[in-house]
Amino acid sequence: MNYPNGKRAGTYQQAGKKKTNDSFSNRGMTLEKDINATNEFYLTNNLAVIHKKPTPVQIVKVNYPKRSAAVITEGYFKQPSTTDYNGLYRNQYIDFEAKETNNTTRFPLANIHEHQLKHMESIINHGGICFMLIRFKLLNETYFVSAEELIPYWYRTLSGGRKSIPYKTITEVGYHVPFHYLKRVDYLQIIDRLYF
Amino acid sequence: MNYPNGKRAGTYQQAGKKKTNDSFSNRGMTLEKDINATNEFYLTNNLAVIHKKPTPVQIVKVNYPKRSAAVITEGYFKQPSTTDYNGLYRNQYIDFEAKETNNTTRFPLANIHEHQLKHMESIINHGGICFMLIRFKLLNETYFVSAEELIPYWYRTLSGGRKSIPYKTITEVGYHVPFHYLKRVDYLQIIDRLYF
Repeated sequence: MNYPNGKRAGTYQQAGKKKTNDSFSNRGMTLEKDINATNEFYLTNNLAVIHKKPTPVQIVKVNYPKRSAAVITEGYFKQPSTTDYNGLYRNQYIDFEAKETNNTTRFPLANIHEHQLKHMESIINHGGICFMLIRFKLLNETYFVSAEELIPYWYRTLSGGRKSIPYKTITEVGYHVPFHYLKRVDYLQIIDRLYF
Repeated sequence: MNYPNGKRAGTYQQAGKKKTNDSFSNRGMTLEKDINATNEFYLTNNLAVIHKKPTPVQIVKVNYPKRSAAVITEGYFKQPSTTDYNGLYRNQYIDFEAKETNNTTRFPLANIHEHQLKHMESIINHGGICFMLIRFKLLNETYFVSAEELIPYWYRTLSGGRKSIPYKTITEVGYHVPFHYLKRVDYLQIIDRLYF
């Protein structure tokens, strides 16, 4: 069978994926879509060059049918070793991760992997701007939390501290990112305020 | 069939791939491996945070077998819309592409796609450091060519100019990147000289 390249766009089914109240995922499409649209707006209007990195896939088998595109027939999702987004704004290196949660009272820290955290620390050490965009889906609120604020909470989980950050704390240490029709998650507005 | 995750590492066969004298590819593993090893050295020694972006894959079908990792059973290679490598060094945004050629007298420009070129232009405009690492495989020589030098040659191909840059020109407008046992493609050395 030959599948023309580009037959089906972007998304794929996540059948059988467990859902719990505590679950959150950076593949949760809504925040990702909003950020992609925002980045597209930034790029088109020559404000910034910020892209989502492709999902890391370990490719095991590829078929090369005659006269049509190569087909990956066996591949696996790899755990990302960095954050999902990076780029350039006003001469500055920008680096961030985005997470959604169905929770309304706290942001669980379990999905932040150690190597992602180490990556965030490196970015700060080398002079980059690093943060996390956190969306409380049911509240429909998105917050900008700098890596400098976030990192200590993550370390506290290692020494038996609480495994999440209370919603109230997020609203205090973070910055609410307003929704704008074209700039759906206008985080550059926050960066302008904090870093320039 | 259940395939344990991580069964086969990294590489995959490129059976049936056409090879011509003019062919060059950013999937040619040698330069990529050398750059990855160099970036690893930079990271481990806390000199810079520079990563290769994952190969963009359009995922069409995923199976979720019970009690084992999700398997991508249909996927396609997408054309990258940016360059392959980016990161942070001495507070500066770094962005580059790597290409190998089997040619010994010229570097063909055909494999630089328009959106990659536009991306390079954007990076320059927003104050980033942007360049290409070009390896002449048979000569075993690698050159650092800044995007500022490279871009005009690419535009000339559009208006009927030659489709390649002569090797001699590369040696003049570019900088030879010496091989070092641990820093196999020590491009930061060139960046130090040119930008700091």
